[in-house]
Amino acid sequence: MNFDSECRLDEGVIEREFTLNEIPGILWTPAISPAPLILMGHPGGLRTQYPRLLGRARRAAADGIATATIELPGSGERPPSADAQQARADLRRALAAGEPIDEIVDRLILPLVEQAVPEWQAALDALLALPELSGAAGYSGGPIAIGMRLALVEPRILAAGLFAGSFVPRVMFEEARQISIPLHVLLQWDDEGNDRQLALDLFDAFGSREKTLQANMGGHTGVPAFAGDDASRFFARHLMTTGREK
Amino acid sequence: MNFDSECRLDEGVIEREFTLNEIPGILWTPAISPAPLILMGHPGGLRTQYPRLLGRARRAAADGIATATIELPGSGERPPSADAQQARADLRRALAAGEPIDEIVDRLILPLVEQAVPEWQAALDALLALPELSGAAGYSGGPIAIGMRLALVEPRILAAGLFAGSFVPRVMFEEARQISIPLHVLLQWDDEGNDRQLALDLFDAFGSREKTLQANMGGHTGVPAFAGDDASRFFARHLMTTGREK
Repeated sequence: MNFDSECRLDEGVIEREFTLNEIPGILWTPAISPAPLILMGHPGGLRTQYPRLLGRARRAAADGIATATIELPGSGERPPSADAQQARADLRRALAAGEPIDEIVDRLILPLVEQAVPEWQAALDALLALPELSGAAGYSGGPIAIGMRLALVEPRILAAGLFAGSFVPRVMFEEARQISIPLHVLLQWDDEGNDRQLALDLFDAFGSREKTLQANMGGHTGVPAFAGDDASRFFARHLMTTGREK
Repeated sequence: MNFDSECRLDEGVIEREFTLNEIPGILWTPAISPAPLILMGHPGGLRTQYPRLLGRARRAAADGIATATIELPGSGERPPSADAQQARADLRRALAAGEPIDEIVDRLILPLVEQAVPEWQAALDALLALPELSGAAGYSGGPIAIGMRLALVEPRILAAGLFAGSFVPRVMFEEARQISIPLHVLLQWDDEGNDRQLALDLFDAFGSREKTLQANMGGHTGVPAFAGDDASRFFARHLMTTGREK
């Protein structure tokens, strides 16, 4: 992992851009270390997502939690995937026409999960080796399918905050039943791009003994500030008390 | 309103039992006044509910919020209602037999709402006249139908935290659409006594622009502590900043 830049933000937060196996990423660490880490998911495109990611990073840092994110396969400055671009175009067309999308979602999401999850795990390997990080880690955000797979296969992920979206391949509902870590699931009740019933079914399917669904009004990007606060407390509860020995 | 007893609890919280129109009630006020007030709903039976009510009162007092509750019609030391007792017996039988309950719920809940809501409003009249209370008020808990009716008809109730239960008469779904104050709705996902779909339909029906559904694992009485914390913050958000002029 190469650190490409380092900025000191206010309140002792340090922002570092890094490159790992040619994948760009960003790490934010709070003033006090060692800190637990939240991997922040996003829809792809680090530069366009940066303002929102920075907001989430600052909030976590205020709780004493570090955050990091990496670019998704095929997004931002990474080489585009012709298959994914085709699938996205097909998805837009099918949604506009009100046609079934299951097969398209499989084509779009399953390869993304297969490629991205090992990349996030490699990022965990490199990041958790830093002395600033305590070893406890969580995953927060979308794409929900990446968070689900990480929650299932990556034992260093102790808790996950998932953003309920409809783009979960049907075959992954079986995976959902096997997930056992604490989950905090956000659902935007009137999300125009989301199938609410599918999101509720998915929440029901999660095998975790501690799982919370928080549904709020508004569309996809209208998550209210207090919902972010509640999610922060979820992570503080599960990551701050479980610092592992390094 | 007659105060029958006064106890000083720790941290400056004062507990007073009162009687209003022969209805017993309890008021808890925090150390700092004037404080907003949460009316605490409960399933009936102040003495048996006391330990849980006290816990809720202490938590609210820690946020600087007063709490009060009164006995429900037909419960505790109030004269029993033969019709309500019959309806409760019918309900138990119908639930055990898996039979439809809509008509029984109407018989049980509608008269309760009609009788209880004016009593809670009279309690508000008396309580909000106290100099210790700021004038801002909320309602928290069950029976959800009482909270819904108060949220609709009582302008002094600025926010309501409702415990999603299935025992809401169908005719009250239309009322739900007319409710406009901020709502925080708790749903126990595996509540054996609850119809989950009905609770979700009810949440969808509420007309409020700010409404949050928080669903957690566990049965009827298994609400996790962090859910109580989130509900507390909901009230603090809506009642602490909206102190009215007396």
